[in-house]
Amino acid sequence: MPTVNAYAATSATEPLIPVTIERRDVGPTDVLIEIAYAGICHSDIHTVRGHWGPITYPQVVGHEIVGVVRAVGSQVTRHRVGDRVGVGCESGSCGTCEQCLKGEEVYCLKGNLQTYNGLDADGTITQGGYSQAIVVDERFVLKVPDSLDLSKVAPLLCAGVTLYSPLKHWNAGPGTRVAIIGMGGLGHIGVKLAHALGAEVTVLSRTLDKREDGLKLGADHYYATEDPATFEKLAGGFDLILNTVSAGLDYSAYVDLLAVDGTLVILGAPTEPVQVQAMPLIAWRRSIAGSANGGIPVTQEMLDFCAEHDILPETELISADYINDAYERVLASDVRYRFVIDAATLA
Amino acid sequence: MPTVNAYAATSATEPLIPVTIERRDVGPTDVLIEIAYAGICHSDIHTVRGHWGPITYPQVVGHEIVGVVRAVGSQVTRHRVGDRVGVGCESGSCGTCEQCLKGEEVYCLKGNLQTYNGLDADGTITQGGYSQAIVVDERFVLKVPDSLDLSKVAPLLCAGVTLYSPLKHWNAGPGTRVAIIGMGGLGHIGVKLAHALGAEVTVLSRTLDKREDGLKLGADHYYATEDPATFEKLAGGFDLILNTVSAGLDYSAYVDLLAVDGTLVILGAPTEPVQVQAMPLIAWRRSIAGSANGGIPVTQEMLDFCAEHDILPETELISADYINDAYERVLASDVRYRFVIDAATLA
Repeated sequence: MPTVNAYAATSATEPLIPVTIERRDVGPTDVLIEIAYAGICHSDIHTVRGHWGPITYPQVVGHEIVGVVRAVGSQVTRHRVGDRVGVGCESGSCGTCEQCLKGEEVYCLKGNLQTYNGLDADGTITQGGYSQAIVVDERFVLKVPDSLDLSKVAPLLCAGVTLYSPLKHWNAGPGTRVAIIGMGGLGHIGVKLAHALGAEVTVLSRTLDKREDGLKLGADHYYATEDPATFEKLAGGFDLILNTVSAGLDYSAYVDLLAVDGTLVILGAPTEPVQVQAMPLIAWRRSIAGSANGGIPVTQEMLDFCAEHDILPETELISADYINDAYERVLASDVRYRFVIDAATLA
Repeated sequence: MPTVNAYAATSATEPLIPVTIERRDVGPTDVLIEIAYAGICHSDIHTVRGHWGPITYPQVVGHEIVGVVRAVGSQVTRHRVGDRVGVGCESGSCGTCEQCLKGEEVYCLKGNLQTYNGLDADGTITQGGYSQAIVVDERFVLKVPDSLDLSKVAPLLCAGVTLYSPLKHWNAGPGTRVAIIGMGGLGHIGVKLAHALGAEVTVLSRTLDKREDGLKLGADHYYATEDPATFEKLAGGFDLILNTVSAGLDYSAYVDLLAVDGTLVILGAPTEPVQVQAMPLIAWRRSIAGSANGGIPVTQEMLDFCAEHDILPETELISADYINDAYERVLASDVRYRFVIDAATLA
């Protein structure tokens, strides 16, 4: 079993530290990927700090992974040595349930296998992308189009598809009015994607601090939600609102911004319950929905769409020994807009 | 202006009493309908008792109206004297907004005109169906197919379309698993309609008291929600859940019954806020939505569908002087399943 360098959390409270971990031998349907870059997702921080429940340590997180194929199993047909590839939040699923057969592996009825902190078939806990290499079943390995700068692609594997999937599912496109709540790691990619899909895009951010960025990335409008006038002005104005903010929100205020048949989609996972009045839903046939990242086909479609429209996240490239500082900056919303770890610095 | 007999509420606390009211003269696009029957909807009771806010008295309620056309205005083209017709919850809308142009008058962006307790263009408060006759713009007059027993049709005009509209909007049909929460005035019609649409129908009622009825009306399954085992057994089992119960519910428990991409639609209007955890929405891309009754085209479609499938509500025909007793029985859930007032008893 190959041993690789990684950065791991060893408890909910201590900084991540360099470790070595073992990857499984390459099985018949496996792909061994030499990791080039890994994005830092807010979920990584929630996970290692136990915000979503206790976990087993040491834990290597990271589910925005890109790299190059270095070995393939005997039955692998989709990928070849030397291919530029990516891995996102899921690395496995039953493959036989209704959802898997539809290519919605993220919603596998038997439960998908998370790329990190997941219980693998062999009883081990999966370890993620803050490492030099990873072994993944070929079904969960995406092709990264040649035109995309590999050093910036990684965040598309989680943040990108988390926004692209609901935009497609709820038919964002020409003539639809899309609002993105939050101008962070997820939100800024949502702006680019929704704009490229042809929708009219509005950013709803707490302040106007990032307004210039938002307009540059493709937003048509940018409003501060700390200003109550925003909610009066925009009432009933959106067909689709994507909420990327995992902090608690006054959901009723945002429901009021939905048009008839509009949908508010929760992408970030607040720990507080969602609370809304029923009448504003009934009176205008509005919906509140949730959406996870996305199945493999829509993830590949998103990568190809990004290549076609020249879309990449805004990133700050860091070395592995900066991960703990990066975490603090993520928590302080002090990043424009996503940290990417250069895996070469793990050597 | 024609004067007609009616039953009106004169305060939020006193019984309804016989009154006379004036109907407007028949305008160019108006239809004068001699009312034959009017259904009693739970909304009538909420309205007259001020549960939804203070109202102006005297108020004649009733928005499940059927009768016969006795006069038409000079420009009326859709209806003729002698036609069997119906009127539902709405009697007017702007006719020019995006929703009206789509035939979704109930969602008129300028606000629809409610058949009772609505502010009419002439500044008067609309008076509803517990009366001998009503004058309505022809656009809001539905044709009642000949094969339907007029004495039972009335509840279709509100209860019927309130169920039919979401069943169609969320694509209930062969292969879909539909649950109806509540086996009352709305729920029992929902069972018939969903069954006729080809869906697999489950009733979720507090007890098994009406199980025999439910199965007879077309339900495939019937479960008691007072039994916690129901929620374990049915977890993830429904594509569409229609909630007809306006009392507060543990919405999270019902969200857990939704399949991937399933939708829980609120039809009754609870006064308590809806409160759910976000993660069960996100993990399975579930939605919570609201839905009002339905536009004119879908209401007509529903009436035609009922004629085609021989669907009528289960009703108890009463005379006008029984309205107050009927109200008490509605509040006690002691009706199977809808009261219909014989308007001949208003004479």
